[in-house]
Amino acid sequence: MTMSIEGYLENLRKMVEVALDGFLPSSESRPQRLVSAMRHSLFAGGKRIRPVLVIAAAEAAGGSGEEAIGPACAIELVHTYSLIHDDLPAMDDDDFRRGRPTCHKAFDEGTAILAGDALLTLGFEVLAQSQREDPGKGLQMIGELSGAAGWKGMVGGQQEDMDSEGAVPEADALQYIHTHKTGALIGCSLVLGGLAGGADAQSLAHFRRFGENIGLAFQIVDDILDVTATTGEMGKDQGSDAARGKMTYPALFGLSKARSMALELIDKAKEDISRLDREGRLAQIADYILLRRL
Amino acid sequence: MTMSIEGYLENLRKMVEVALDGFLPSSESRPQRLVSAMRHSLFAGGKRIRPVLVIAAAEAAGGSGEEAIGPACAIELVHTYSLIHDDLPAMDDDDFRRGRPTCHKAFDEGTAILAGDALLTLGFEVLAQSQREDPGKGLQMIGELSGAAGWKGMVGGQQEDMDSEGAVPEADALQYIHTHKTGALIGCSLVLGGLAGGADAQSLAHFRRFGENIGLAFQIVDDILDVTATTGEMGKDQGSDAARGKMTYPALFGLSKARSMALELIDKAKEDISRLDREGRLAQIADYILLRRL
Repeated sequence: MTMSIEGYLENLRKMVEVALDGFLPSSESRPQRLVSAMRHSLFAGGKRIRPVLVIAAAEAAGGSGEEAIGPACAIELVHTYSLIHDDLPAMDDDDFRRGRPTCHKAFDEGTAILAGDALLTLGFEVLAQSQREDPGKGLQMIGELSGAAGWKGMVGGQQEDMDSEGAVPEADALQYIHTHKTGALIGCSLVLGGLAGGADAQSLAHFRRFGENIGLAFQIVDDILDVTATTGEMGKDQGSDAARGKMTYPALFGLSKARSMALELIDKAKEDISRLDREGRLAQIADYILLRRL
Repeated sequence: MTMSIEGYLENLRKMVEVALDGFLPSSESRPQRLVSAMRHSLFAGGKRIRPVLVIAAAEAAGGSGEEAIGPACAIELVHTYSLIHDDLPAMDDDDFRRGRPTCHKAFDEGTAILAGDALLTLGFEVLAQSQREDPGKGLQMIGELSGAAGWKGMVGGQQEDMDSEGAVPEADALQYIHTHKTGALIGCSLVLGGLAGGADAQSLAHFRRFGENIGLAFQIVDDILDVTATTGEMGKDQGSDAARGKMTYPALFGLSKARSMALELIDKAKEDISRLDREGRLAQIADYILLRRL
């Protein structure tokens, strides 16, 4: 009997938690305040969607999940750094995330900036260490991750997001923000997984497009939830995007159109990956992540 | 006739400037504010000491300077990111550096945080790209750089520096801060240069120790200059460390003892490297950097 998607996800998540704990400095390491802050944000009950996608992509490419655990953890380290920095007063100024105080609230701003810096740096360290047996592939992965995370990817998206606050909503700017801020790293998750599992260049292109599309859908759903969900469901203040004058899909297109855009992206993504996704796990993850929240 | 040390340094610096400009996104790239901020801080008249050391080490190891230009630029990108983040209000809160407004003063805090993030990420990208012909060496370099820059290196030193403000000066804490905050990345500069030039493991250990010792000396000199130099000479506020209750070598040992400690470290460093440094360039750089400032 095939395992349920819930069971499958739960198994992968546990694998990721254990591995992340092993890659982090122990709580007693010096400087203790820095290490505590890194651990506070990394073990804050995240859903581990990105590392799960890395592992599922590696399996879809014909590899084993174990081969992908280093890249999976690297992606989660980079994702967590981005959350810490985005939450800072100089950026989104959020006091809570997943119902817990954000890093700069639990510690202080300076420590939060450094904890983010340290997690980003550790992401590259973990990725490099995990690929010693095939350094050519390792170097390719580092190129992918730095491209997706840097000025032409995630950091660029966050900058445009900040710069567009209070501006008149505009479809082109909004698409740029979401594809860069969220799509790039999720696309990269699929590519690293594909590489770990031995995918060829053509398959990698499919993995990347799948990731970018579900990444954009994921962000649209986030925008929708900011309008419709309660503060308790979100773990952060409801309506905070609107209050800040942020450009969002519901603000630009209305709730109903935004919903159908997300669903279309998911359909497109599943079609893109259908030949590779023989076990259907990637399609299930896409549905699971998105539909249960809409 | 051998070139003067001044001419030698000037040539290397020019090489580094040109290469850095090529690795950075062009000024018209999107997001323009982010790219402007990255360029503002990277081209702010820095002395390029670290990349010069990378290239000089590669030459001392028997390689060519051109082979080391990627690692040299990667180090400078990581160094510049660390300056931007250290200058932030939540950390050292400096308005000027090298006589120009710091990144968050010229732009804003959010942009400065992201410009630092982008430069750090670009450092790994440049390093990975430059080592495609020998990926095993590239992966080793990325391991070295992430170790030296992260929680157990430079970021750790900055955290302890922050945490110790206002504390009673203590030799052990001060040594930890300086060896981590400055020594680790300068040591890494020498190691990356050595690797680029083809040094063996034993030579690498000498390169590393040379770098760590001149790094510590360099920081002691910085502490001394904070007390003795004028604001114009420093390009930042004179006495700002003392005003902030920072732990420094002159505060702990007095000016005269701090001076002799710096000179001893330089002598030790030069002795360590003497067999490798056949042209004597590394020793000259150590003297040049330090003595002209004391």
